[in-house]
Amino acid sequence: MKTSARNQFLGKVAAVKKGAVNDEIDLEILGGQKIVAIITRESTDSLGLRPGVEAYALIKASSVIIMTDDDGAKLSTRNRLAGKVSRVQPGAVNTEVVIELPGGGAIASIITHESAKALALETGKKASALFKASSVIIGVPN
Amino acid sequence: MKTSARNQFLGKVAAVKKGAVNDEIDLEILGGQKIVAIITRESTDSLGLRPGVEAYALIKASSVIIMTDDDGAKLSTRNRLAGKVSRVQPGAVNTEVVIELPGGGAIASIITHESAKALALETGKKASALFKASSVIIGVPN
Amino acid sequence: MKTSARNQFLGKVAAVKKGAVNDEIDLEILGGQKIVAIITRESTDSLGLRPGVEAYALIKASSVIIMTDDDGAKLSTRNRLAGKVSRVQPGAVNTEVVIELPGGGAIASIITHESAKALALETGKKASALFKASSVIIGVPN
Repeated sequence: MKTSARNQFLGKVAAVKKGAVNDEIDLEILGGQKIVAIITRESTDSLGLRPGVEAYALIKASSVIIMTDDDGAKLSTRNRLAGKVSRVQPGAVNTEVVIELPGGGAIASIITHESAKALALETGKKASALFKASSVIIGVPN
Repeated sequence: MKTSARNQFLGKVAAVKKGAVNDEIDLEILGGQKIVAIITRESTDSLGLRPGVEAYALIKASSVIIMTDDDGAKLSTRNRLAGKVSRVQPGAVNTEVVIELPGGGAIASIITHESAKALALETGKKASALFKASSVIIGVPN
Repeated sequence: MKTSARNQFLGKVAAVKKGAVNDEIDLEILGGQKIVAIITRESTDSLGLRPGVEAYALIKASSVIIMTDDDGAKLSTRNRLAGKVSRVQPGAVNTEVVIELPGGGAIASIITHESAKALALETGKKASALFKASSVIIGVPN
């Protein structure tokens, strides 16, 4: 299987928190980082998700927000991966930004051209990738 | 009413599953396919959604993921519409991909240029459109 | 802290509705408008959100849908900000649209070029910005 989701992280399910309609899935990825996903309960069941199961997290580049100048402000996005900008590819309206993570992986984000300018993003700059738990798709190998 | 959501599917509510904050709505569309939406409970009430009610599902092109080479891997995305690529429109950073569905409709997706290349998308290629239940907006005619 | 989220609204928490996995947060912003956010329960706790607390709502431009010709149709998007188009910036695949709000603020949206044409968007035209409660990120100052 191949998907257009630019970001794919392989990991192991660390926890499953049950709700009435939605469940919260904690996935431990390379380097011990954690990705949190909110998926429907029916998906948890059909994918057979439980602690220890191997799974991957897919995140569209357009769901990722870039943060710089972190001064301790808190955000509701459950997922925050910190690293360094390794690529800035500008388009007419959007710009693609790639952040290299300490563990060796990378995360891509699509933001507006205006935002890229406002954040003065350039190679080597410290930045974090933020994404909501509800933006994460969980997959299991066949 | 007109919206910028590229994808709009008319259907009938088949089921409403209640949660504390969110509800799950099943919409049956043309050709018997099903679209699943997660919306807040308050919206279910204010829209008067219950089985049999006519409603439409709106999905932004940027919320749709394209999948090819389906080898049986499972994903948490509740919505999967399979068809054939009918259009690939490249931009500087993003590419628009349209998939024609067997029932006669079509679904548009915005993915990164890199992903379009990696998937080798071209007219006629088999592909699926995936989107999360939480990316679907439900509307009812006035 | 700086983020790439083009839309940021400062306000005060008006209500917190508790669910099993997700909570609903009502934020009152400038001019008395309300923004509704769905975030995980753990985020509500870690941010210390309760009525009266100052917080801001972040919304990515790509999460915003533009609506025109509002004829009373109802949608499940909990958030709807009405105003006038103040900018249309076309790209190859996407177009950026900015809507000026009566209270003095503005909201930016990224939509497909095709949608912008179909809606005949131009400066001065009445339009609404719609976004799902699940697309909103809540932040609190440090």
